[in-house]
Amino acid sequence: MFKAELRSDALKGLINVISTLIDEVKFTISPEGISLKAVDPAHVAMVEINLGKGAFESYEADDTEIGIDIDKVKDVLKLASSGDIISMEQDEGRGRLIFKVGNITRRMNLIDTSSLNDPRVPQLELAASIEVPVTDLQKGIKASESISDHIALTADSDKFELHCDGDTDSVDLVMEASNDVKIVSDGKVSSMFPLDYFSNLIKAIPSDLRVRIELDTDFPVRIVFALAEGNGVVRYLLAPRIEKD
Amino acid sequence: MFKAELRSDALKGLINVISTLIDEVKFTISPEGISLKAVDPAHVAMVEINLGKGAFESYEADDTEIGIDIDKVKDVLKLASSGDIISMEQDEGRGRLIFKVGNITRRMNLIDTSSLNDPRVPQLELAASIEVPVTDLQKGIKASESISDHIALTADSDKFELHCDGDTDSVDLVMEASNDVKIVSDGKVSSMFPLDYFSNLIKAIPSDLRVRIELDTDFPVRIVFALAEGNGVVRYLLAPRIEKD
Amino acid sequence: MFKAELRSDALKGLINVISTLIDEVKFTISPEGISLKAVDPAHVAMVEINLGKGAFESYEADDTEIGIDIDKVKDVLKLASSGDIISMEQDEGRGRLIFKVGNITRRMNLIDTSSLNDPRVPQLELAASIEVPVTDLQKGIKASESISDHIALTADSDKFELHCDGDTDSVDLVMEASNDVKIVSDGKVSSMFPLDYFSNLIKAIPSDLRVRIELDTDFPVRIVFALAEGNGVVRYLLAPRIEKD
Repeated sequence: MFKAELRSDALKGLINVISTLIDEVKFTISPEGISLKAVDPAHVAMVEINLGKGAFESYEADDTEIGIDIDKVKDVLKLASSGDIISMEQDEGRGRLIFKVGNITRRMNLIDTSSLNDPRVPQLELAASIEVPVTDLQKGIKASESISDHIALTADSDKFELHCDGDTDSVDLVMEASNDVKIVSDGKVSSMFPLDYFSNLIKAIPSDLRVRIELDTDFPVRIVFALAEGNGVVRYLLAPRIEKD
Repeated sequence: MFKAELRSDALKGLINVISTLIDEVKFTISPEGISLKAVDPAHVAMVEINLGKGAFESYEADDTEIGIDIDKVKDVLKLASSGDIISMEQDEGRGRLIFKVGNITRRMNLIDTSSLNDPRVPQLELAASIEVPVTDLQKGIKASESISDHIALTADSDKFELHCDGDTDSVDLVMEASNDVKIVSDGKVSSMFPLDYFSNLIKAIPSDLRVRIELDTDFPVRIVFALAEGNGVVRYLLAPRIEKD
Repeated sequence: MFKAELRSDALKGLINVISTLIDEVKFTISPEGISLKAVDPAHVAMVEINLGKGAFESYEADDTEIGIDIDKVKDVLKLASSGDIISMEQDEGRGRLIFKVGNITRRMNLIDTSSLNDPRVPQLELAASIEVPVTDLQKGIKASESISDHIALTADSDKFELHCDGDTDSVDLVMEASNDVKIVSDGKVSSMFPLDYFSNLIKAIPSDLRVRIELDTDFPVRIVFALAEGNGVVRYLLAPRIEKD
């Protein structure tokens, strides 16, 4: 059993992030909230999302799993304005999920979850942690897109840098530690990442949010941010691109 | 002779509706106003529009007919902002219509009206009449577009429904009788219609308007709404899609 | 040596005009400001731009030349909002130009200027001079685009006209001398021009500006307007299309 009401903005935040990686997703539902883990087909990036029941306007659920076609939920989101409440209810008898937005009811067939496996999320302790407004990263990405297909992220004790190096041109975004830019790092760490994955994620994050970037040398980067005013959390892991010497 | 001034919004409302059905139209002009009847090439839908002289800022005309290329009038509308006044004058000697918007004059050749026949509009008494804000219908259509290519409209004494049923998914828009939703119906009536025609019309209606839907079982639907603050009226007939048993 | 800061709007105004003609441009830099001359590959139009040091927020330069890829500067402009300051600095050792917008640094290779020749700008005395708000011209162009691929500009002592004549339709923009429309002309002058060049230029001009049009019969038209609140000037010459008798 699953029956809940959620603000459209929270559902949109969730769906936008998932859709950067996959088309179909399995939500694991419990009395305490919903969660999901997803990895992209190329196994380059992985996301783990938890949305506690506090994120919902109303929430009632047993332990269950539902498989969802992301594009169909995007269609539902187009019917809602910012601030609208979207109601969801599982129709267990017919294997459907029923969405309601205002006076519109949208019933959709669920996907068989047996083919949707939970990826194993590696436990990583990463040396540096940086907290920045996502808008700065969004500008850095915009500047990098015509330059190269990968970027380097570097953190020092007092500085975080995004660097993109092309054949003739280069881009640097430099953020010094400040009230707005929190940096915790023992020494210098640096890794290189595919720009397209990083860019798709960063652009999917609402621009009024802050993100935490956890970084280490030649390790995946973990990008963490809040959903639904702190009642949910997204953890995104992106594999590094190891430079050959 | 025909010489008139009209607010761009009224001309735009008129042209947007016509262009959902045809590319060329014949306006029948009289001292009292203009009117037109048009049917689409597949004979699925038909529109009848009357715009009384009260809709115009100024109006002077004898009985005449003019044949117009809709796309050219759309070009003229792009030169006007909302609230601008567009002047039109027939140049009988040269078979042209002269539009003026601000300090721009646009002369266009008229189309020979002998090839543009007035369709015969059937007189239909339909059992149910529903009056709703067009925005609700616009949302119902948006929800239906990915589901199926036809929709069912159903009216009961206290409820109006738009229903769209696909292979795996479905959409329902339910509107209960209220101050905002007026319903007059003896018992239940229901018909099915092609979504594309219905959608093109409903999207062409300015979203602050109310529309009247006249409905019966396996009969065409008539959709009626006002133009130019009540000085004009659009009557649109759409043939039903009869389900085979 | 060249090091300067400029508001993004001024840089954008400059770049938008140049990009209607060419992809690569040579800036001639002196202690007093920067200038450029450019002709399109078909030698139909030519532009001369001067931007005095007063246009800049800060300015320091020796005599030098730099060759720039216009598309790359457009990428830089996308990083700036209206009102942002863009800093530029020549890195002579590495043949680069370094742009800074906020905390983003964009380094770009300069283009070899030896292949970028300054065109010789003809000295022309044109009989008529008209000063009008550019928005009127922008509307006249919009109205003309579906009619024909050339336009006629005509000036008389008290009237300026843009005329576009197609096979079946025509457009006239008529501007009478007034406080808003200044005309100085000895008798009537008229020339015909390719609509695409005229249109690309006029659309690239910010719509709150006024332009001066200098016109003569079967001579190029010169279009002059200010950049950076009068600290810069654009002079654009467009060859006439001579009608064969």
